[in-house]
Amino acid sequence: MWQVLIPSPRASTDAGGKMRRSLIVTSTVDAPRQSTSPARALVCRGCGAEFPLAAQHACYECFGPLEVAYDPAALAAVTREQIEAGPQNIWRYAALLPTGQDPATRVTLDPGLTPLVSAAALAAEVGLRAPLWVKDDSANPTHSFKDRVVSVALTAARELGFTRFACASTGNLANSVAAHAARAGVPSIVFIPGDLEQGKVITTAVYGGELVAIDGSYDDVNRLCGELVETDEFEDTAFVNVNVRPFYAEGSKTLGYEVAEQLGWRIPAQVVVPMASGELLTKIDKAFSELVEIGLVEAPEGGWTVFGAQSAGCNPIATALHNGTDQIIPVKPTGIAKSLNIGDPAAGSYAIEAVTRTGGWMDYADDDEIRDAIQLLARTTGVFAETAGGVTVAVLKKLVASGKLDPDKETVVYNTGEGLKTLDAVAGQVGPTHRIKPSLRGARDAGLLG
Amino acid sequence: MWQVLIPSPRASTDAGGKMRRSLIVTSTVDAPRQSTSPARALVCRGCGAEFPLAAQHACYECFGPLEVAYDPAALAAVTREQIEAGPQNIWRYAALLPTGQDPATRVTLDPGLTPLVSAAALAAEVGLRAPLWVKDDSANPTHSFKDRVVSVALTAARELGFTRFACASTGNLANSVAAHAARAGVPSIVFIPGDLEQGKVITTAVYGGELVAIDGSYDDVNRLCGELVETDEFEDTAFVNVNVRPFYAEGSKTLGYEVAEQLGWRIPAQVVVPMASGELLTKIDKAFSELVEIGLVEAPEGGWTVFGAQSAGCNPIATALHNGTDQIIPVKPTGIAKSLNIGDPAAGSYAIEAVTRTGGWMDYADDDEIRDAIQLLARTTGVFAETAGGVTVAVLKKLVASGKLDPDKETVVYNTGEGLKTLDAVAGQVGPTHRIKPSLRGARDAGLLG
Repeated sequence: MWQVLIPSPRASTDAGGKMRRSLIVTSTVDAPRQSTSPARALVCRGCGAEFPLAAQHACYECFGPLEVAYDPAALAAVTREQIEAGPQNIWRYAALLPTGQDPATRVTLDPGLTPLVSAAALAAEVGLRAPLWVKDDSANPTHSFKDRVVSVALTAARELGFTRFACASTGNLANSVAAHAARAGVPSIVFIPGDLEQGKVITTAVYGGELVAIDGSYDDVNRLCGELVETDEFEDTAFVNVNVRPFYAEGSKTLGYEVAEQLGWRIPAQVVVPMASGELLTKIDKAFSELVEIGLVEAPEGGWTVFGAQSAGCNPIATALHNGTDQIIPVKPTGIAKSLNIGDPAAGSYAIEAVTRTGGWMDYADDDEIRDAIQLLARTTGVFAETAGGVTVAVLKKLVASGKLDPDKETVVYNTGEGLKTLDAVAGQVGPTHRIKPSLRGARDAGLLG
Repeated sequence: MWQVLIPSPRASTDAGGKMRRSLIVTSTVDAPRQSTSPARALVCRGCGAEFPLAAQHACYECFGPLEVAYDPAALAAVTREQIEAGPQNIWRYAALLPTGQDPATRVTLDPGLTPLVSAAALAAEVGLRAPLWVKDDSANPTHSFKDRVVSVALTAARELGFTRFACASTGNLANSVAAHAARAGVPSIVFIPGDLEQGKVITTAVYGGELVAIDGSYDDVNRLCGELVETDEFEDTAFVNVNVRPFYAEGSKTLGYEVAEQLGWRIPAQVVVPMASGELLTKIDKAFSELVEIGLVEAPEGGWTVFGAQSAGCNPIATALHNGTDQIIPVKPTGIAKSLNIGDPAAGSYAIEAVTRTGGWMDYADDDEIRDAIQLLARTTGVFAETAGGVTVAVLKKLVASGKLDPDKETVVYNTGEGLKTLDAVAGQVGPTHRIKPSLRGARDAGLLG
């Protein structure tokens, strides 16, 4: 606990009419974390205003989104040896995260250090000549990259004094928050769109927390959570992607750190990242920048290039880039890649900035391309991805075909979720190749014996 | 390659009318494996006859099942430090396995080192006072413990010269073999009962190999595979649980090694293990025995005790034990725990031997108890298990209630698979707790605002 919060994690002070401070910080105390966290402040991505490390997600000056800022000296003190001696999960990077330095304070399923799979057969099929890797985050405890951000968000939330955990979710986040809460023995309340895949509904409900299905889109869910967080009844509640969002977002940096470490402390020349809010892409880029700044890796020759992938049913970020602007026009999402269906992406303009700055590009894939790419990835690598992974592999293929991605440069493609959660996407495409009677004659009739 | 196999992995020599040698071993060559594998021979569990390390699964003398035997001196040379310096997967125990010592020869998704989850809340609910742990093997690459046995079996199979991978499966094994084959770029043909859960069918089919649905039970599937393996058309085919079964079975030992290492090189006083063929239970017991024999751990005071769990719909091993015999009477399986539905369990009598020798017991749970236990485990630990895990937790509860399991001794319960694969089991039990309109009024009407 690095700040004593009284009387509650939420206060009634208005700031600018609509904006209310989520916390009154009345005092600070010396605590182990204080001396070990490298985080320094929350900084507005818009105007640069600084705020204390608390449950606040928007700037009181300009309403811009906040991001965790670090003490450069603290980051610079981190060594490869220190990281390599750490646990086999995201907490090996605790010295680069805003919270969780003390293992006893963590609210976590210990996600991370997921496989970086060499994908030579996939490279050959899509036309890459340089090494291709799949960072397979379906290997996390609830089988998506969300376990990373939830572990960081909820660890911060408990330190901040919150006693209930919540989120607005397209599914994977719901699974993760509910599972984390069950492990920690903390009540949870999770908000999802009413039309989610059954796999994601059941896999959240089974943990026994409250699960609220909302008659609307993810953007409706998110909007409602933004209102609920300001009510008295939710003053004890940390919404991982609302009031503790700055901490939450930092968890995604570990997907950058890990790839660099797993490549032997090298940054790949090219990465292809799926986009929902766009935040994951920006944080992978941020992780690479940090590693170079603090001297843990050298930048690759010519720097790294970041590519973004969306589905055709929800492509507001890619569309803006294609139109030469960073002004995102919200869309009403459609299509099977539901975990990416954020029509009003909070970090879209930052994703465009990162992609533009690094010389990358964005593209999108339709449902048929997504289904084909799920099968392509499975067949060539043994990795069964959810629809978001299909989006990313389909876009990889397009980027090679269009010449936007250099086929002679090492590339990492991120799979952020598990195929078992979106079985319906491929249920009509694949199945038994033969059905036979249980006899040699049955096998012979089916052509299995020549 | 430690044996040169000519002309093919299968021969036509009959042995005892029905039994045919699966291999003609014509010569042996010096190879890296030869000097580093601790395996010495295949030994008949019935009569003790010894055979070379080849693709043979039954004794030519008595038709008994074969097991890998090791060079005691080779095992005794293994140190904790050597293991701890190894990779973060089952191959850290390569010096205790029959194959895979050379990383370049492995056919593997690198399974293992899955979480050992502290389960204090679950312990309290079932009435245990001593520490309780859940060994969560849903964290493996295809989300079941089968990745362990498949990695060992297919690594041996490729060394033996097989060019196609196959299995008879209740589902999880199918997923794993198909995924391993896809990763390795080797053709696969997988045989499953026609009534498998959709999740397991799609998750096998998506990898693009041949998938044969058989109109019959798992025991029918297994019988047919035993016939196919003797045909000319399948002479190049390794059935992981038929002709390379002795290697396959050894992979399960890693579930014993890991628990001991994760407990700080201690063997738990009690383990509860799900039973299908019964082999997993015997191999965990074997792993503990080996660790003590070679001096890597000390046996706990009073030794360890092994408990077995089946479902009421398929309980031939537990029934035999309850009847005071080790003669298994095959049953026709029913019930939702399909991954355990082996009506004629190959290692049943050996499981009874291990349980009896260690002072343990077996019990079984019906479908309602399984469903409740899946939810109990999820709610108290954040681990979402498939039906087999529900069986094991339900039986744990019964064993405590009946006094068979000592509530004051440290206990490990094994979850061998992932809840996402058997969603139907709980689909009727859990779901959203509220459905609301996307507004504060909707939230208020649903009672979420007091």
